[in-house]
Amino acid sequence: MYNKMTAQDIAALRQIEGLEVLCGDAINPDYAHDELGGISHMPEALVRVRTTDQVAAVMKHAFTRNIPVTVRGSGTGLVGAAVPVKGGILLETTKMNKILSLDKDRLTVTVQPGVLLMELAAFAEENDFLYPPDPGEKSATIGGNISTNAGGMRAVKYGVTRDYVRSLTVVMPNGEILTLGQAVAKNSSGYSLKDLVIGSEGTLCIICEAVLKLVPLPKVSVSLLVPFPDMKSAIEAVPKIICSKVIPTAIEYMSRDTILFSEDYLGKKFPDTKSDAYILLTFDGNSDAQVEKDMATVADLCLEIGALDAYIVDTEERKKSVWSARGAFLEAIKASTTEMDECDVVVPVNKVDAFIKFTHALADEYKVRIPSFGHAGDGNLHVYICRDALSDADWKKTLSLCFDRMYQKAEELGGLVSGEHGIGYAKKEYLKKQYGETPIALMQGIKRVFDEKNILNPGKICF
Amino acid sequence: MYNKMTAQDIAALRQIEGLEVLCGDAINPDYAHDELGGISHMPEALVRVRTTDQVAAVMKHAFTRNIPVTVRGSGTGLVGAAVPVKGGILLETTKMNKILSLDKDRLTVTVQPGVLLMELAAFAEENDFLYPPDPGEKSATIGGNISTNAGGMRAVKYGVTRDYVRSLTVVMPNGEILTLGQAVAKNSSGYSLKDLVIGSEGTLCIICEAVLKLVPLPKVSVSLLVPFPDMKSAIEAVPKIICSKVIPTAIEYMSRDTILFSEDYLGKKFPDTKSDAYILLTFDGNSDAQVEKDMATVADLCLEIGALDAYIVDTEERKKSVWSARGAFLEAIKASTTEMDECDVVVPVNKVDAFIKFTHALADEYKVRIPSFGHAGDGNLHVYICRDALSDADWKKTLSLCFDRMYQKAEELGGLVSGEHGIGYAKKEYLKKQYGETPIALMQGIKRVFDEKNILNPGKICF
Repeated sequence: MYNKMTAQDIAALRQIEGLEVLCGDAINPDYAHDELGGISHMPEALVRVRTTDQVAAVMKHAFTRNIPVTVRGSGTGLVGAAVPVKGGILLETTKMNKILSLDKDRLTVTVQPGVLLMELAAFAEENDFLYPPDPGEKSATIGGNISTNAGGMRAVKYGVTRDYVRSLTVVMPNGEILTLGQAVAKNSSGYSLKDLVIGSEGTLCIICEAVLKLVPLPKVSVSLLVPFPDMKSAIEAVPKIICSKVIPTAIEYMSRDTILFSEDYLGKKFPDTKSDAYILLTFDGNSDAQVEKDMATVADLCLEIGALDAYIVDTEERKKSVWSARGAFLEAIKASTTEMDECDVVVPVNKVDAFIKFTHALADEYKVRIPSFGHAGDGNLHVYICRDALSDADWKKTLSLCFDRMYQKAEELGGLVSGEHGIGYAKKEYLKKQYGETPIALMQGIKRVFDEKNILNPGKICF
Repeated sequence: MYNKMTAQDIAALRQIEGLEVLCGDAINPDYAHDELGGISHMPEALVRVRTTDQVAAVMKHAFTRNIPVTVRGSGTGLVGAAVPVKGGILLETTKMNKILSLDKDRLTVTVQPGVLLMELAAFAEENDFLYPPDPGEKSATIGGNISTNAGGMRAVKYGVTRDYVRSLTVVMPNGEILTLGQAVAKNSSGYSLKDLVIGSEGTLCIICEAVLKLVPLPKVSVSLLVPFPDMKSAIEAVPKIICSKVIPTAIEYMSRDTILFSEDYLGKKFPDTKSDAYILLTFDGNSDAQVEKDMATVADLCLEIGALDAYIVDTEERKKSVWSARGAFLEAIKASTTEMDECDVVVPVNKVDAFIKFTHALADEYKVRIPSFGHAGDGNLHVYICRDALSDADWKKTLSLCFDRMYQKAEELGGLVSGEHGIGYAKKEYLKKQYGETPIALMQGIKRVFDEKNILNPGKICF
């Protein structure tokens, strides 16, 4: 169906000014997979783009020659979305990493897709702004964040990536450059093509520039670490906090074992590991008094319903130890086992407890470790099934059984297959199972409208 | 292309249990048009639906028989989106007006599409919640608000309707019932069909139920009315306010003549009409001290840059007089002239001043009245061209010249054709002109994917 790439194709790509083109053994084998590694396929060529025009030129060639193209940011994905499963060209955006402009009157920043989340966060802060979306993986690219509609920790108060994308400049499969949306706050001008592209995991077009909304940097931001005797009471506190009219910026949950993995992994102590379960909250605002009041309200509420203590995380040292631990959970769990796979379900915020209990029961039933952590405040859980000492056959069987049960449970609870990591290649069957025939057929129809030849990231989401 | 409706069609619709079916002279002629009346066409049948199953049954019949169906809420639109320009069935949702449930843990409310915005606002408030989107037209239905992605006054702080729609139950053109999205805060599970339907003006499917996000009702909400010597200084204050790190809930602008129309129309006095231009701000929050501090910061800033005064709108009486005037602007301008048409552009917030000045120059050049008001804080302007004593020929010519120039200017300033009123029938050519061939072709392709027979609201947006 697709053309295998020839020496002429490579030569044609090398004609594109300034484009870095690698093929064969020159491509590092890590480009065959993403962060998890379970899905693997080498590209025939790796191109590193620096400009929108280069992307357009690559696509023009690929379109004419019917060669598949898969976009890759920093490869931090977990569902194989950036794996070139049909070969062809892997188009890496990490060198397209300029912050192009800051508009202080409109509160917007214009970025290339390869800018890392941590770079954008730092830039915004230096300029007294906040880019609210805050996924745990700070070395992900902003292009990847937009392509998965990543949410992160601050979604409780600030929403998800979708809410901060004002407009996108994209390259279509045939190489045409389009701008979708404008840097304005309201839009009722036809179907929102921009919102279709957000979360489309590189299957509809290639994001080459984004105008993102910023907010003024809150003057005060403080965290509160609240230990509970068990996960049940910790998680049950969350809807009560949300009902209390205080709106925390973030509400994360974590269990002692996850914290201990992280201490091991980082070689750094966490402020407290005496309790089985913790919630970690952040509050921000422009007045010390208001933030302190909000924090006190939540601390009192937690103590009333069984919290063992409430530590204010205010010194720089404490902040660092808590948040660096939180940031390292994925890596720490990965380091604690031989192999793992993950489930990124999102459930209604008052069903988080039910879902976590269910994963504990599954772990007992299948005799497998299933640590989890995540965003208690918005119902998005990151659940990891660890292989540990399982044989290849047992691992595959256990994984499949656990996933089937977990996704079914999430659906029962009114949840969805993925909150922020996407569908990619790994979760396609679960998406199909949840949505049924017609929504998948609509998605396939939309894919055909954008990409008639199916050359952009084929084999992902709905095909 | 479409079948004309026969007596058999009417009989078949009358077989649908509980469905109200009107035809011929039994249909009030007002159903031929929306609020503005410039676009007019009678339906062959008017059906009033009460349940999703009735909607599905109507669509099954229409699909089989190839009869166009246009959805209408309360008919408050301004661009002809709810006008059955190809005849067929007009499907009215105003009787499908139940608030189905409130989930206090998830902060969501489930509503039918015919619930009026003012009913939803009151219900939320009675339950100590706020539904933030706040368009001026309170008797619009929520289905209509979702179909245009209406924004309203509080968009500065709270965003637009899109940001509050968690999931939609819809009926497809062939009568199939689907749920798009779930009542969860994050979603990275395939293309966002829900976001495609939001703002699609009834052309892709029929919204039959919506789960909407609420926020806790802020304990304090106060308005500030700030008179300025002229519109220029009033509007120039807005980006400065936004840069000051205080985030008002709303920033509206209004000119003295618009206020005077409104006083005439309502027979009620506005607190102050001595100045040429005003901005009206709202601040909300949970602490008196914080809201007062925010308000003082903005009042001081405004006085520093030329405001003549700053009135706190705190008594119930004053609140009523100010906000009822603001709510009546559209009706008041309409009552001041023989006929009018409107332009709902959105421009970057720091270009509002340039756009308003441009409309003043146009008014002088073409000797026509062009009053405007709107959402200075988010760049969305409602600009009205008044016919007054113009002849039919002169009116058409002037309207066309003014619109061409205004939409061109909006595009030059980095704006869009519509901020919240939609494209409907009236603004199609301007959308095509702004977007160009490919985005319109993508929209047409998407329309075909959802509605292969083009029976749902044909002749709107992109066809």
